[in-house]
Amino acid sequence: MSRDSDAVESERRTLICEFLPLFYDKGWVAGTGGGICAALDDQTLLMAPTGVHKERVAPGDLFVVDREGRVLRPPKTPALRLTECSAVFCAVVKRCKAGSVMHSHALSAVLAGDLAEGKDRIMIRDLEMLKGIQGCTNADHHAVPVIDNTAREPELVGRILDALDQPEFGKAACVLVRNHGAYIWGDDVWDAKRHAEVYHFLFEAMVARTRVARPLR
Amino acid sequence: MSRDSDAVESERRTLICEFLPLFYDKGWVAGTGGGICAALDDQTLLMAPTGVHKERVAPGDLFVVDREGRVLRPPKTPALRLTECSAVFCAVVKRCKAGSVMHSHALSAVLAGDLAEGKDRIMIRDLEMLKGIQGCTNADHHAVPVIDNTAREPELVGRILDALDQPEFGKAACVLVRNHGAYIWGDDVWDAKRHAEVYHFLFEAMVARTRVARPLR
Amino acid sequence: MSRDSDAVESERRTLICEFLPLFYDKGWVAGTGGGICAALDDQTLLMAPTGVHKERVAPGDLFVVDREGRVLRPPKTPALRLTECSAVFCAVVKRCKAGSVMHSHALSAVLAGDLAEGKDRIMIRDLEMLKGIQGCTNADHHAVPVIDNTAREPELVGRILDALDQPEFGKAACVLVRNHGAYIWGDDVWDAKRHAEVYHFLFEAMVARTRVARPLR
Amino acid sequence: MSRDSDAVESERRTLICEFLPLFYDKGWVAGTGGGICAALDDQTLLMAPTGVHKERVAPGDLFVVDREGRVLRPPKTPALRLTECSAVFCAVVKRCKAGSVMHSHALSAVLAGDLAEGKDRIMIRDLEMLKGIQGCTNADHHAVPVIDNTAREPELVGRILDALDQPEFGKAACVLVRNHGAYIWGDDVWDAKRHAEVYHFLFEAMVARTRVARPLR
Repeated sequence: MSRDSDAVESERRTLICEFLPLFYDKGWVAGTGGGICAALDDQTLLMAPTGVHKERVAPGDLFVVDREGRVLRPPKTPALRLTECSAVFCAVVKRCKAGSVMHSHALSAVLAGDLAEGKDRIMIRDLEMLKGIQGCTNADHHAVPVIDNTAREPELVGRILDALDQPEFGKAACVLVRNHGAYIWGDDVWDAKRHAEVYHFLFEAMVARTRVARPLR
Repeated sequence: MSRDSDAVESERRTLICEFLPLFYDKGWVAGTGGGICAALDDQTLLMAPTGVHKERVAPGDLFVVDREGRVLRPPKTPALRLTECSAVFCAVVKRCKAGSVMHSHALSAVLAGDLAEGKDRIMIRDLEMLKGIQGCTNADHHAVPVIDNTAREPELVGRILDALDQPEFGKAACVLVRNHGAYIWGDDVWDAKRHAEVYHFLFEAMVARTRVARPLR
Repeated sequence: MSRDSDAVESERRTLICEFLPLFYDKGWVAGTGGGICAALDDQTLLMAPTGVHKERVAPGDLFVVDREGRVLRPPKTPALRLTECSAVFCAVVKRCKAGSVMHSHALSAVLAGDLAEGKDRIMIRDLEMLKGIQGCTNADHHAVPVIDNTAREPELVGRILDALDQPEFGKAACVLVRNHGAYIWGDDVWDAKRHAEVYHFLFEAMVARTRVARPLR
Repeated sequence: MSRDSDAVESERRTLICEFLPLFYDKGWVAGTGGGICAALDDQTLLMAPTGVHKERVAPGDLFVVDREGRVLRPPKTPALRLTECSAVFCAVVKRCKAGSVMHSHALSAVLAGDLAEGKDRIMIRDLEMLKGIQGCTNADHHAVPVIDNTAREPELVGRILDALDQPEFGKAACVLVRNHGAYIWGDDVWDAKRHAEVYHFLFEAMVARTRVARPLR
């Protein structure tokens, strides 16, 4: 690595470790769940370990993986294992040309998924905050795909790619996973954070406006 | 500039950059949206850039503009562009003789706007917090104008001025923009912050007391 | 003053100024409203100024007043004026032998007051947190007086004293003021903070359990 | 003690005192209620004092007790008394081979207990976050026992042990106490914190999905 790419990597590791406590404070990552990845260059991604308290991840705890999720450089701490989200992160980066993907376990994302009921999407409209999504205006009827959850995270990949193949989801920078949360992405870590703020606001607004309740089973 | 006005400008830049993270923590600015302006003197205003994460704006990132929104001194960072709210900020400063205007994207402001339904206002009453608005008592029936949203922020100016021309809104230090948020102002940055706290409390109280839900479309 | 009472006063000023930002973060003081007083000794009380952003009050900004609310030592900043709550604070200190009284503008206190509707009290029961109130058990049916609001804070004194004269409110360390908030007290600043945490929890629990809504007027 | 066990004890005391302010910020401990214990070794436990503001407990304020809750080493501050939860903590540590137990007074735990109504459990399902509980999958129908509250905390022990004897609660790392809160445990302090985050999320999700209200009495 050149001195420059060293500096970029160091800065990006630091930024990720600034954002994870922020995501934790907002309730997007909790109980060791949730996470984030970020491209280092065209070939590689930084990814957090699994099973750790995300708000306490240190810059040196991140994995460097290739675009297929193969570990190129593990963190020095030997016990750390790569995030379960690796396959989803790689698929979204490749399919959407995203530079960063975050995975949210927010309650508002779960409740927004509930709004879809049997359908494969929620429609978001009548909110200025839609402008915060790249390519959207506040007049858009913005379709966000909602897919069913699976036993393991890598099994979500096919469902996510199928959803993103549908042209009506062309502007979505988010997939909701029923009973689970959301994957949200952007051109870089800053954009992923902005989109995360925007989509979580939209989820909360949708839920507040509809107040859907499910009967207790 | 004299040494004194230098000190005032420096202090005001610092205060704005203290308040923006506070506004972010409260959910008033998010997803790069929302913002604030503050008068430096009778001729000029400080304004934040657009498209940036507002809670991370540094004192040196602010624009100095004249009362028509023309840039007098840009920040040193060349890529920064002036906030989209510039025209609204200038109009409110001029019309209401405000020394500072903040723009909120809070969910409570959106939901308070929903309470107006087809009407052009919400009426706030029976709350001690009304005393926090300059010129109001807790016995007031306080009318806050609610205007429709537009495609671009500068197009709001006419609607805001039309609303503020109506004498029943004479005590309002706030305009609600449907599906969007609110503009809130005061004599200076401190007053704008106080009014922001007061109005957001009033929005939350109104929403909690009425629990309006809109059917899912 | 002796060296000892100097140290006590300094420590108490510091503690109050640690708690005010905490109260602000919790939404108990906002928009310059709300506040706290604390006894220095049998003769004197520390009180915050009015009309200031309470979370930014500095130790030197507090007034020393006698038990009738007469200013003995003002803060050095000449523009500061004594809190509007002074008369209520003095009355509660005297009547309840309290060492500290805090005044909350929390939304949960307003909504708990709504639960009383036309009645002069709310009854709190079936909550372990009742144990956090001095002299209470979790089996208590705890009566908290609810009084009507007045135009000015000093006018609340008579209503508060009338309420506290009723024996069924003998264990209450709180008076709710309709559409306004609450006064909450304890033996010292620590106890007032504990009671504030306990009562706000109880308010939130009552509101969550009953979800009372008032029709929009 | 060896130098090693000294270091372990010091680290554990520090970690507990990092987590207590976090629990306070989340509303799990408040009004001096709630708490945590942690095993030092096979024979001893660290426990917080009772009646103190938990978010301000210092490492030196913790008691060292044996597995029956007998104090082996008190904190240096003489006025401190051992937590009321001691008997419950010891029983759960012994019965569940837990290395740490936290006690929550969260409103979400109280409201989740309300969902049980007359029954002795709540069933949690259809939530990815279930994976955060040791031994669970997101397909589980996870049974959490709900027991009635008692006058004093030590009286809860029998009810908790009776509940945990039922095989259908075999995977639960939590007992809900009606009108009171929850006990949540894990293999060590980190696991107890993770489980606390997971269960409080599950409580909030259950409550949001069902919106149970009880009539005001």
